[in-house]
Amino acid sequence: MLRVLVLHGPNLNLLGNREESVYGTTTLAEIDASLSKLGSELGVELEIRQSNHEGELVTWIQEARGNYHGIIINPAAYTHTSIAVRDALSAVEIPAIEVHLSNIHRREEFRRHSYVSGVALGQISGFGPIGYLLALRGLHEHLSSHGSKPVSGAGLSRGAETRSH
Amino acid sequence: MLRVLVLHGPNLNLLGNREESVYGTTTLAEIDASLSKLGSELGVELEIRQSNHEGELVTWIQEARGNYHGIIINPAAYTHTSIAVRDALSAVEIPAIEVHLSNIHRREEFRRHSYVSGVALGQISGFGPIGYLLALRGLHEHLSSHGSKPVSGAGLSRGAETRSH
Amino acid sequence: MLRVLVLHGPNLNLLGNREESVYGTTTLAEIDASLSKLGSELGVELEIRQSNHEGELVTWIQEARGNYHGIIINPAAYTHTSIAVRDALSAVEIPAIEVHLSNIHRREEFRRHSYVSGVALGQISGFGPIGYLLALRGLHEHLSSHGSKPVSGAGLSRGAETRSH
Amino acid sequence: MLRVLVLHGPNLNLLGNREESVYGTTTLAEIDASLSKLGSELGVELEIRQSNHEGELVTWIQEARGNYHGIIINPAAYTHTSIAVRDALSAVEIPAIEVHLSNIHRREEFRRHSYVSGVALGQISGFGPIGYLLALRGLHEHLSSHGSKPVSGAGLSRGAETRSH
Amino acid sequence: MLRVLVLHGPNLNLLGNREESVYGTTTLAEIDASLSKLGSELGVELEIRQSNHEGELVTWIQEARGNYHGIIINPAAYTHTSIAVRDALSAVEIPAIEVHLSNIHRREEFRRHSYVSGVALGQISGFGPIGYLLALRGLHEHLSSHGSKPVSGAGLSRGAETRSH
Amino acid sequence: MLRVLVLHGPNLNLLGNREESVYGTTTLAEIDASLSKLGSELGVELEIRQSNHEGELVTWIQEARGNYHGIIINPAAYTHTSIAVRDALSAVEIPAIEVHLSNIHRREEFRRHSYVSGVALGQISGFGPIGYLLALRGLHEHLSSHGSKPVSGAGLSRGAETRSH
Amino acid sequence: MLRVLVLHGPNLNLLGNREESVYGTTTLAEIDASLSKLGSELGVELEIRQSNHEGELVTWIQEARGNYHGIIINPAAYTHTSIAVRDALSAVEIPAIEVHLSNIHRREEFRRHSYVSGVALGQISGFGPIGYLLALRGLHEHLSSHGSKPVSGAGLSRGAETRSH
Amino acid sequence: MLRVLVLHGPNLNLLGNREESVYGTTTLAEIDASLSKLGSELGVELEIRQSNHEGELVTWIQEARGNYHGIIINPAAYTHTSIAVRDALSAVEIPAIEVHLSNIHRREEFRRHSYVSGVALGQISGFGPIGYLLALRGLHEHLSSHGSKPVSGAGLSRGAETRSH
Amino acid sequence: MLRVLVLHGPNLNLLGNREESVYGTTTLAEIDASLSKLGSELGVELEIRQSNHEGELVTWIQEARGNYHGIIINPAAYTHTSIAVRDALSAVEIPAIEVHLSNIHRREEFRRHSYVSGVALGQISGFGPIGYLLALRGLHEHLSSHGSKPVSGAGLSRGAETRSH
Amino acid sequence: MLRVLVLHGPNLNLLGNREESVYGTTTLAEIDASLSKLGSELGVELEIRQSNHEGELVTWIQEARGNYHGIIINPAAYTHTSIAVRDALSAVEIPAIEVHLSNIHRREEFRRHSYVSGVALGQISGFGPIGYLLALRGLHEHLSSHGSKPVSGAGLSRGAETRSH
Amino acid sequence: MLRVLVLHGPNLNLLGNREESVYGTTTLAEIDASLSKLGSELGVELEIRQSNHEGELVTWIQEARGNYHGIIINPAAYTHTSIAVRDALSAVEIPAIEVHLSNIHRREEFRRHSYVSGVALGQISGFGPIGYLLALRGLHEHLSSHGSKPVSGAGLSRGAETRSH
Amino acid sequence: MLRVLVLHGPNLNLLGNREESVYGTTTLAEIDASLSKLGSELGVELEIRQSNHEGELVTWIQEARGNYHGIIINPAAYTHTSIAVRDALSAVEIPAIEVHLSNIHRREEFRRHSYVSGVALGQISGFGPIGYLLALRGLHEHLSSHGSKPVSGAGLSRGAETRSH
Repeated sequence: MLRVLVLHGPNLNLLGNREESVYGTTTLAEIDASLSKLGSELGVELEIRQSNHEGELVTWIQEARGNYHGIIINPAAYTHTSIAVRDALSAVEIPAIEVHLSNIHRREEFRRHSYVSGVALGQISGFGPIGYLLALRGLHEHLSSHGSKPVSGAGLSRGAETRSH
Repeated sequence: MLRVLVLHGPNLNLLGNREESVYGTTTLAEIDASLSKLGSELGVELEIRQSNHEGELVTWIQEARGNYHGIIINPAAYTHTSIAVRDALSAVEIPAIEVHLSNIHRREEFRRHSYVSGVALGQISGFGPIGYLLALRGLHEHLSSHGSKPVSGAGLSRGAETRSH
Repeated sequence: MLRVLVLHGPNLNLLGNREESVYGTTTLAEIDASLSKLGSELGVELEIRQSNHEGELVTWIQEARGNYHGIIINPAAYTHTSIAVRDALSAVEIPAIEVHLSNIHRREEFRRHSYVSGVALGQISGFGPIGYLLALRGLHEHLSSHGSKPVSGAGLSRGAETRSH
Repeated sequence: MLRVLVLHGPNLNLLGNREESVYGTTTLAEIDASLSKLGSELGVELEIRQSNHEGELVTWIQEARGNYHGIIINPAAYTHTSIAVRDALSAVEIPAIEVHLSNIHRREEFRRHSYVSGVALGQISGFGPIGYLLALRGLHEHLSSHGSKPVSGAGLSRGAETRSH
Repeated sequence: MLRVLVLHGPNLNLLGNREESVYGTTTLAEIDASLSKLGSELGVELEIRQSNHEGELVTWIQEARGNYHGIIINPAAYTHTSIAVRDALSAVEIPAIEVHLSNIHRREEFRRHSYVSGVALGQISGFGPIGYLLALRGLHEHLSSHGSKPVSGAGLSRGAETRSH
Repeated sequence: MLRVLVLHGPNLNLLGNREESVYGTTTLAEIDASLSKLGSELGVELEIRQSNHEGELVTWIQEARGNYHGIIINPAAYTHTSIAVRDALSAVEIPAIEVHLSNIHRREEFRRHSYVSGVALGQISGFGPIGYLLALRGLHEHLSSHGSKPVSGAGLSRGAETRSH
Repeated sequence: MLRVLVLHGPNLNLLGNREESVYGTTTLAEIDASLSKLGSELGVELEIRQSNHEGELVTWIQEARGNYHGIIINPAAYTHTSIAVRDALSAVEIPAIEVHLSNIHRREEFRRHSYVSGVALGQISGFGPIGYLLALRGLHEHLSSHGSKPVSGAGLSRGAETRSH
Repeated sequence: MLRVLVLHGPNLNLLGNREESVYGTTTLAEIDASLSKLGSELGVELEIRQSNHEGELVTWIQEARGNYHGIIINPAAYTHTSIAVRDALSAVEIPAIEVHLSNIHRREEFRRHSYVSGVALGQISGFGPIGYLLALRGLHEHLSSHGSKPVSGAGLSRGAETRSH
Repeated sequence: MLRVLVLHGPNLNLLGNREESVYGTTTLAEIDASLSKLGSELGVELEIRQSNHEGELVTWIQEARGNYHGIIINPAAYTHTSIAVRDALSAVEIPAIEVHLSNIHRREEFRRHSYVSGVALGQISGFGPIGYLLALRGLHEHLSSHGSKPVSGAGLSRGAETRSH
Repeated sequence: MLRVLVLHGPNLNLLGNREESVYGTTTLAEIDASLSKLGSELGVELEIRQSNHEGELVTWIQEARGNYHGIIINPAAYTHTSIAVRDALSAVEIPAIEVHLSNIHRREEFRRHSYVSGVALGQISGFGPIGYLLALRGLHEHLSSHGSKPVSGAGLSRGAETRSH
Repeated sequence: MLRVLVLHGPNLNLLGNREESVYGTTTLAEIDASLSKLGSELGVELEIRQSNHEGELVTWIQEARGNYHGIIINPAAYTHTSIAVRDALSAVEIPAIEVHLSNIHRREEFRRHSYVSGVALGQISGFGPIGYLLALRGLHEHLSSHGSKPVSGAGLSRGAETRSH
Repeated sequence: MLRVLVLHGPNLNLLGNREESVYGTTTLAEIDASLSKLGSELGVELEIRQSNHEGELVTWIQEARGNYHGIIINPAAYTHTSIAVRDALSAVEIPAIEVHLSNIHRREEFRRHSYVSGVALGQISGFGPIGYLLALRGLHEHLSSHGSKPVSGAGLSRGAETRSH
């Protein structure tokens, strides 16, 4: 059975409770619930965590080695400032999908660069909560078609730069 | 019934026939076939076109007004150089999803900027052919939850900048 | 009798039909009509065309040689991306006026640079549809005071850089 | 009756007297005379002033509040260095037209940026003395079509960023 | 009664104990004492904390929701590197004052940019320990004149960009 | 008795009379009155002036030598463009506080750099009219604790770069 | 027998007919004639085309696959703006020589960058019409020494970055 | 007896266990063992720690005051993003050596800047595990020749900028 | 007899009276006296003025036309910010020498660019008060060897860019 | 008889002896031999030199005046760093061809700028050893068609910037 | 027996004789003596040279091929300006250690970039004369553990980019 | 008696012999003669040398220590590329004057930066051959007023950054 680690970065724990006109009314718990439901349908076991600490996210990514076949991560603010998260994702050699609720390319200049993109398999942004579900579907299809033993997926997530668009 | 226009940009017609070690062996026709199949499952009618001409893509986008509820576009090289494509997408007020087969954030510097992102609802990159299927699923869910009359979707695709991650 | 070629760039064909709150309700046909009317008053024969294709605009500019005394062009998106349009205007040696409906200096950063300005006689921006009329008046006065044979106007439009403000 | 303030920036008082091969032989007095003549034709009362002092231009713009329906300004060198002139134009909420005798986009790099453009209704450059006349015509048409009470024009000159070209 | 949270960022716990010629001899405890004394005079209840952890500061800011009317924060090194702190301040919608002991605009280039400024109500820098007292006075006056219910202050701290100097 | 010179830069004379939704309804006269009131309480004699002329501000700062113990200055637009004001403040060796009504760090890019910061004792921005009062309190405390003879305060305002935050 | 495709980009059709003092008096037809003559001498069959359309050039390059052993291209204005032309050249895996009549390194800043150089075998600039002949000689020698079957030349034109000067 | 604190930054705990072709097969434990062995030879007592948390590294550096004569630190990813680590090293006034296993000047652009270099005594990069031993030898020689009382070494590590190469 | 206008920019009136350790003890009056003395020796009549106003300097430069054979100017802070001074010097066509007491190339980054250099005959910096005397000597020799009628010197000061070092 | 000077820059003496997989197996002696052979065929007398010294290359270029009709130069590393070589080429007024074995536009960023291009007649890069032969042919044809007296060729190599592509 | 070439760049011959407060009192002869002493201990034969000529350093590096197992180089000023030195080091394929007496990362901006780092095995900076000894030890250990035949060491010094910190 | 070393950089040996319309007709020998003549008048002994080699200029500057009281240097092309020349001038602690025949601030962008300025006492540019004479006069006056023993002049030429203009 496929096992996937879902990581939410800083401030995502506030989702849905505050600034509803901005962030929408979906809470993080509701996102996690719909992810779990889809996981069940697809036969994927999920572990979901949130942290405001860069170091804690790094440690969790490190611990994913040998335990998970894939990672879905919304690094939030650390997307733009954390090389440590990038290095951890690079080191563990597990396919990782980067998710952003909003379209980060339409926001402030400093949110348009992602340290994580350079080591992620793919990126999904702008779909709101739906983005997590697409990430899980995409990761599931990727793992299904490339095999799924925890350590061998690495080559896939960090293979040679492809040339297609 | 939902109607979606799928547009492939320049050089994508070569997909799968050449440079197989780089682009993979999936042809554009195969991608289109799997899109059509998923469209049938979801009850979405698809129109799929490819062009090497910037102006032709602009015209097709313009003609989508009143005829389609959503657009899926892989602008390929025009992603990085065409403000005309951006302006057309902005003008027609139809939700658009930007798809890239590769993770453009891991390629040459000049491929990391997208004029289209600023007016797209969402972006999916790095999943290879799977990306088109995720785009169709995501667009379908978005249109289903926000209603689907051809012109009213516009407000959604170009709403105020959201603050969630 | 003076002959002037008026060229509208990509997406300007949508003017007035859509996004009325943004673009206003004046259609391109109405702009063309008021241009024609003023042309009649001033004794200027007008040829007006619109294209979404960079290459077509280039070809039309080339064909203006020997046929027109002046060009009025709103290159729209190609203002910022087309060196080919610039080169064509430079090659045909006919005085050209660059028109923008909006004040491009108040928009996104990437709209503030114009490849066309470097070879245009003058630039008018921010007056909305009135801008075209001012361009025609200005071009008419310029041609009247500098003579008007189709090919000799070139020196004027591309003369030595002037130092006045 | 419409009242318009015309402001000439630093060094424009030298126009036509010196460096004739560069600046042409039209003096500032001649420009002012032709402006006055056109003002009479259009039924616009003009007040025309020149200063080499940034602070004096700021003060004159401030005093335009309640006294003039529009401003035509050639800020000359202050175009590129004066935020104070920009702030004054922004504060008085009167439609302002920015005029440059030469096409500033074809000159030194440091002359291609204008602080004034961001708060002006429109910009006309490259037409030589004709530019002032076009500015007056354009301003007249703008004020005529939008009403002309001194303070209400402000909304027009500083309205929401428009999207047309 | 008004309640204000005071947060000291990394390395500020060393204040006054070391490098006295550089940092002065005032300890963090002495700053906190004078803040408390002024708080008593103004009728403001203070909670004061220090952390070297970015994630801990983020969490404390999050927990301020519903519990405090205002925040005074000296983010120290995180001023320049933490988007997470910025996002937390933005999310909790409580007026925040940014304090810096030194004038950060007179230091190394990398200290001249603040991620926090973009979401803070105001910034005070260069006054040494006095800066905290000014911040408390300013915040107190602001809250007094704008009302003080914990959640409604948010609109104030993040209102539309003002135009005054 | 301490003597402080308060200088208001260009366009601040318009405060409160116009654009009330933007600048608020407090006039410059009201700010000056509340400053004078606080000056009386603190035992500080104030001289308050406003000018639109860069050169006049420079001259007033020069004349402060030997006559005032401190300067409070809101350079407005000259904040970003005047090295002459900076040089004058540097030359007179009197502690100066830089005040901005709005948080300049949240405005246009060109307003985020201050030539004055490099020679000012401290900076206060974003508090609206309250900022002037905080500046006076802060300057008063600074002068009281460092002695107050007009010329000797200079060393303080321009001492070696400090390292605290 | 070797077969080579020669492509002329936008505005090159004007060569020799206009602006003779600038472009010289050699027409494109004359260049093509001397190319054909040299082709005959070297035993190379040539196909020569010109287009103002970016998309048409892309399509022609695509169609060269399997039909030509080499490409000589003067992309003119598209040298600097077209990633689509670059991608097409990269995809077809045929050795390509980039020719410029003038020394583009001595012209405007925006003409000094070439998207095509990154995928071309070699570049020749500044020799005027002679440059095309040198390109044909060089391509002929390259193909002769590396074999000439249409598809196998690709590895040569896009081999690993060499280190010699 | 000299006492030295050795700090390993984020992800260094993975060394030697994974990605052996990239990182080599030496584990962090082996590096620590060889450091301890050399420490014994040189008569230096070592304390060695690793953390993924920026804040924890900051705290450990702070606690070095009065307890250690020198610091050897490989900040890993925090080299490029942490001003807090820099400030801590600067504050404790203990000579610090910066070590990098790889030659960071040959890696991605964002790894070529180090916040730590500006406050370190010296930097050693590119020697792999040997680098730590060189750092210990160099620090030992430095401390031996400059005296070794815990607090007085600071002046040495942060002395005036020297001019030799 | 040759007539030369000497202009001192903002804050130079403070010279020698204050900050003696920085600016030296030579006053502006002493500089002017030694200039006058050298003028007498060389047979050059001098007019010397100082102003803090950019506009006043512009006006004085304008008035030099027909009245002086050369200008010596130390624009001080306006060196770096005034295009108006540059334009005035350019317009009056009188050879101008730019003098700086200090070596501006060794100061803050923003002092290293001079708008005036582009239109000055020569620049002398770093010699302190001696620099004015060298400027006068150099200007005298230049005027003597090139003739000295007030208006004809202009061609010399603004001739074609020379290629010698 | 035409005389041409061929100059090889630093490190080119190593060609073919080392790093054969990178630089190929052709030695500099072999290149020189094939150049001499072609020179004989074309009736051109060649002088060929190599130096690692910038100053020596400068001196050799200077000495070419009056002795050679043309120069072929591969400046190698000095391409990117030597203004002295550029100035020498500019001063001697002899047509010069710049040759690079590799396509410098496909290498490191710092190799993409050439100081020499700005004064060279033409540039050939990416053809390997063939490039020298093309350069000789091109130079021969250029000199033959423009006459060949040693000093008069200069105007050709440094004529007014041409506008063709 | 291992043989190592030590190269000192320009101006290092002045070391210790002048500017003692800046450069210290250690002369280059003393550094060379301590290097020789350590060489004897480690069984490494040293050849030590100094030159002010870029070309001479290039030639010496070239001659190291086949004669030395390693190079220690302090390129001094050429660190930042010489691509020729870089190319020579790259071509000879001998492991090279870059040494700087001072910490170049704490000096002027233009000293922070090194062309040599990109081809060096490792870099040591900031240790003063000790740095040379550490370089010799590090190089000795590297050569000992990787074998030491003169030409085979090259692969080591220029191997694939490693990923460890 | 004062002794001054005059150094001419690369290509200055060509002066006056070639490109007379550009460089003028004054030869280097004539400049040297007029310098010697002025030297005699002022009682200064001159040594004058020219070199195309960066290393030779460095060596000559080094040898000036103890032998000359001042240096006049026109580094020509090395002005912009040689840190070695800068370092030599900095090391020898002799007052140096930088001379440029043309006004380098009016030439190509890459000629506007001088590495030498940062360590020179003063700079004179734009006066043609007269510039050398002014440099000698200025250096003579400087040395006369500050004393003239060869080594003590250094402090003067490299003293703390001055603040005057």
